[in-house]
Amino acid sequence: MATVESLTAQIAEQSALLNELRKQQAEGPEVEEVKKRLGDLKRTLGQMSGGSSREGGKKKERILLKTPKGTRDYSPAEMHCREHIERIVKDCFTTYGGSCLDTPVFERKEILAGKYGEDAKLIFDLKDQGGEELALRYDHTVPLARYLAMNGATTQAKLWQVGKVYRRDNPVMSKGRMREFTQADFDIAGVYDTMIPDAEIVGLLCTILTRLEVGEFTIKINHRKILDGIFEVCGVPLDKIRTISSAVDKLDKMPWADVKKEMTEEKGLDGAVADKIGEYVKHKGGPALLEQLSADATLMANASAKLGIEEMGILFQYLEAYGVVDKISFDMSLARGLDYYTGIIYEAITEASAPPGFTAANAFAATPETAPAPAPAPPAKKDKKKKPAGEEEDEEIDESKVGVGSIAAGGRYDGLVGMFTAAAAGEGKKAAQLPCIGVSIGMDRIFAIVWPRWVERGMRSKDTMAYVMAAGDGLLTERLRLVQELRAAGIKTDFMFKRKPKLPAQFTAGERDEVPFAIILGEEEIKAGLVTVKEQRWEVVGGEKRKIENEDKGVKIARSQLIDWIKGTPTYQGWSTGKLI
Amino acid sequence: MATVESLTAQIAEQSALLNELRKQQAEGPEVEEVKKRLGDLKRTLGQMSGGSSREGGKKKERILLKTPKGTRDYSPAEMHCREHIERIVKDCFTTYGGSCLDTPVFERKEILAGKYGEDAKLIFDLKDQGGEELALRYDHTVPLARYLAMNGATTQAKLWQVGKVYRRDNPVMSKGRMREFTQADFDIAGVYDTMIPDAEIVGLLCTILTRLEVGEFTIKINHRKILDGIFEVCGVPLDKIRTISSAVDKLDKMPWADVKKEMTEEKGLDGAVADKIGEYVKHKGGPALLEQLSADATLMANASAKLGIEEMGILFQYLEAYGVVDKISFDMSLARGLDYYTGIIYEAITEASAPPGFTAANAFAATPETAPAPAPAPPAKKDKKKKPAGEEEDEEIDESKVGVGSIAAGGRYDGLVGMFTAAAAGEGKKAAQLPCIGVSIGMDRIFAIVWPRWVERGMRSKDTMAYVMAAGDGLLTERLRLVQELRAAGIKTDFMFKRKPKLPAQFTAGERDEVPFAIILGEEEIKAGLVTVKEQRWEVVGGEKRKIENEDKGVKIARSQLIDWIKGTPTYQGWSTGKLI
Repeated sequence: MATVESLTAQIAEQSALLNELRKQQAEGPEVEEVKKRLGDLKRTLGQMSGGSSREGGKKKERILLKTPKGTRDYSPAEMHCREHIERIVKDCFTTYGGSCLDTPVFERKEILAGKYGEDAKLIFDLKDQGGEELALRYDHTVPLARYLAMNGATTQAKLWQVGKVYRRDNPVMSKGRMREFTQADFDIAGVYDTMIPDAEIVGLLCTILTRLEVGEFTIKINHRKILDGIFEVCGVPLDKIRTISSAVDKLDKMPWADVKKEMTEEKGLDGAVADKIGEYVKHKGGPALLEQLSADATLMANASAKLGIEEMGILFQYLEAYGVVDKISFDMSLARGLDYYTGIIYEAITEASAPPGFTAANAFAATPETAPAPAPAPPAKKDKKKKPAGEEEDEEIDESKVGVGSIAAGGRYDGLVGMFTAAAAGEGKKAAQLPCIGVSIGMDRIFAIVWPRWVERGMRSKDTMAYVMAAGDGLLTERLRLVQELRAAGIKTDFMFKRKPKLPAQFTAGERDEVPFAIILGEEEIKAGLVTVKEQRWEVVGGEKRKIENEDKGVKIARSQLIDWIKGTPTYQGWSTGKLI
Repeated sequence: MATVESLTAQIAEQSALLNELRKQQAEGPEVEEVKKRLGDLKRTLGQMSGGSSREGGKKKERILLKTPKGTRDYSPAEMHCREHIERIVKDCFTTYGGSCLDTPVFERKEILAGKYGEDAKLIFDLKDQGGEELALRYDHTVPLARYLAMNGATTQAKLWQVGKVYRRDNPVMSKGRMREFTQADFDIAGVYDTMIPDAEIVGLLCTILTRLEVGEFTIKINHRKILDGIFEVCGVPLDKIRTISSAVDKLDKMPWADVKKEMTEEKGLDGAVADKIGEYVKHKGGPALLEQLSADATLMANASAKLGIEEMGILFQYLEAYGVVDKISFDMSLARGLDYYTGIIYEAITEASAPPGFTAANAFAATPETAPAPAPAPPAKKDKKKKPAGEEEDEEIDESKVGVGSIAAGGRYDGLVGMFTAAAAGEGKKAAQLPCIGVSIGMDRIFAIVWPRWVERGMRSKDTMAYVMAAGDGLLTERLRLVQELRAAGIKTDFMFKRKPKLPAQFTAGERDEVPFAIILGEEEIKAGLVTVKEQRWEVVGGEKRKIENEDKGVKIARSQLIDWIKGTPTYQGWSTGKLI
């Protein structure tokens, strides 16, 4: 019944035991016994590996210590920054009246089927181990819609989720484009007066990005109804609307000339139709652009476009009250890839979003037909269609040519919940509809922007406030008691895991964590009911964090007053009210 | 290029458009155009489903709206409770000096191989879609060890992780035993003085369970070295130690007679050897039991047992300083299933842990050989070995006969990181060792205990503090401005998404969320620079939450003073200092 693995584990265990005995300088039969046991185990393992056993027979292979492609670990210092980001996002979500929802990381495959258009090939499937066909979630939107359809689609609710989602895409790790990544979603479900939830979501997004200090940002907004109207008016055939829409969506990273080529050469659109589309989608602006479109009689004769333009007018009016109009760009080239959007769509971008050297402003400035393009970035990915199916794409991506992309995106999807209720009810049955609108914030992309600044500012990597030390004979029990007292009072406290540590070693350990309060116990002080407290400060000099040295020997404080004393310091109060130190 | 799915999405979109036009009572060519489009789309879809297209041909099947087996959604009210639990656990982790780590949800399959003994069959694999072989993580311990091995195994660190892990086991949903479940782990890696980190982990676990108010709990502790010593002394053959250990571990849910049967009949152990084991493993107690073992010459002659007993002595001494000895039961039947433990092991249990009717106390009280057992619970699971491989086990479990099980567990694993460094270095190379100890808290099992009490106490399901309403003509813009002002000041605020809502409807909406401050805007008050604030309270009567009615018409407050006024109330201050309302 022993396996190679259980024997390996036992060998490790016995080796550890032998080490410990040696550390204690043990001798005699005990040690001999362990050595013998270890020998027996190793022989048994050797025999198994020799080929007689079912588990054996194959040579032990070296394993590769790495995370799967497109995924990564986050170290404690990075996580401290990520937690800060997550805390702000969640606080904004609840400040805007949101309630948290949690759905499983995997779904039944039929739930995800037919929701992602051309990107469905990026879904991670689970292996068939008997039972249901499962796949990792691709976003939070589809699981949310499934939840709403299951739980009576007549709700009015503001729901948020923060969690990991999965896409088998080509990763660009340094820009936060990963196969496993965290999205923070906020969605409003229910029938409400036109554009009020829409304005609420855009207002929320502006609040979050401002509080996260991602730098200057812009929310690009468009409306699927306007876009569909334009495609209809320009003469795009019915069955090409979605795919032409996908091509338009690439205008944030490709010049118009390349997009047009994709429309005509790859997707078979008439060149004249493409040109007409180009005339429309190059526009961006604010309420003035809306005026201009309202004056376009051809467009206003289209029911879809007209409704979209009217809704955008109402939206701008509400965004004025939210005080965020200066952050908005009505961008007619924004299309978004997903099938399920039906109303306004939006994307938040910062300076880091576009590929270096590429600006959306110059996408239409000059095309290869008229003049050499002003250094348009080459498409970062090669055409994936040429890869045989089922084979891992492992092409090299030049990360310096790729931007972070949009840091948040979303839109209105009034049909998605209804798709589920309809599919569950069966053909011909009446299904409940539930209009929804939501936004997904790309937490890894936000992190890619915030982290370098965090490092530059010399932010701490943990929040430990006190480090308890002892002079003299270690005083382990006394240290433990004081540590537990401080912790019970909510003060984050640590100490050295040594019976008789030297004082300088303890200072070094506390300084490694940049702990602001060094608390020193001594035999004499304990008798007198006192402790010594020394406050320590750090500064960033030339990109390096260093302790500010001073002659302060610390203050002696009555042990009974210690907790109140610490909590009364400006340092502690600054930390506990959320000011980062 | 159109697919069934994209057409379905377009149909949903056009239907929504038509509905909106009807809502606006639009007529004429616009409406006709949309109707025609909708007809065209439906015809195209019909033709595809008719069989001419590659995507068509199959009859549209009804889909099942459910989460995968062994997984579930958590509703907003449940998540509010889960967030409360998670907040406490994380706060304790950082109070004890821990730093957060995050690893991917899936790992390369070779990383998980050979770590889980008999339970390896429960690992969820990902489908081979080209590239690496991947599997969902089974716990946080193995990914942590992989991380430590990758990042220089010489660290001293306290690391914590909270996240989902995956096991293809038979779920018992009502008891928090699931296929996808959340574990909160805290681990201490590094070489330290004996038993100090061990005591720190046990102290931390006691702090967490006390703060979570899970009711009376016990930490059962044992030592792998003592257990191995006992097995050796009793005469268990080398290759049967792990499997006999697994059998002993079941003593918390099966009477000794059944465990003995498993040892002898299933696992081929000699009956006399089993009886000797039985004599040892029935003991539990505290320092007195340690004294007793120290006096057992046979046991003390075994190097492994002797070292274990000495270490337990040191541990108890430190736990005294942590003030938690009364929570500890030195339980010699505790074995833990995992292969990788090498030192102390522990499990936290509460009253809800054992199967109803079964108490660990009566497991040895009477065996079928001497007298009828006092209502021992039958094993809840049938023997799984009889199932053909690869087939989903879908047997019914009687949930009333199953306990919540242990709510936290862990142990020392000094060899695991070394297994990785050794496997990565290749045969014969010297590999770095890194001793570790950790604990995993079963967040779903904690939730299963805390949630019913939470409901009973009538806890709120969100933290919204203010609800802004308007009398008269809706005053939407004015409401939006005030809402944004309050939110900017950190006050969680909501309002009704209607242009001209009636006042009673707004009160009802605010009361549904049990919002404590109703803030009412009126034309006259706006002119005078005033708002009306009404504080609302709730009580639980006969298990029902209801609003305390009063004649209070609210107070008029200067608009400029509103934020300070709210923040100065006892209600707001109680909430903001963490007191739950």
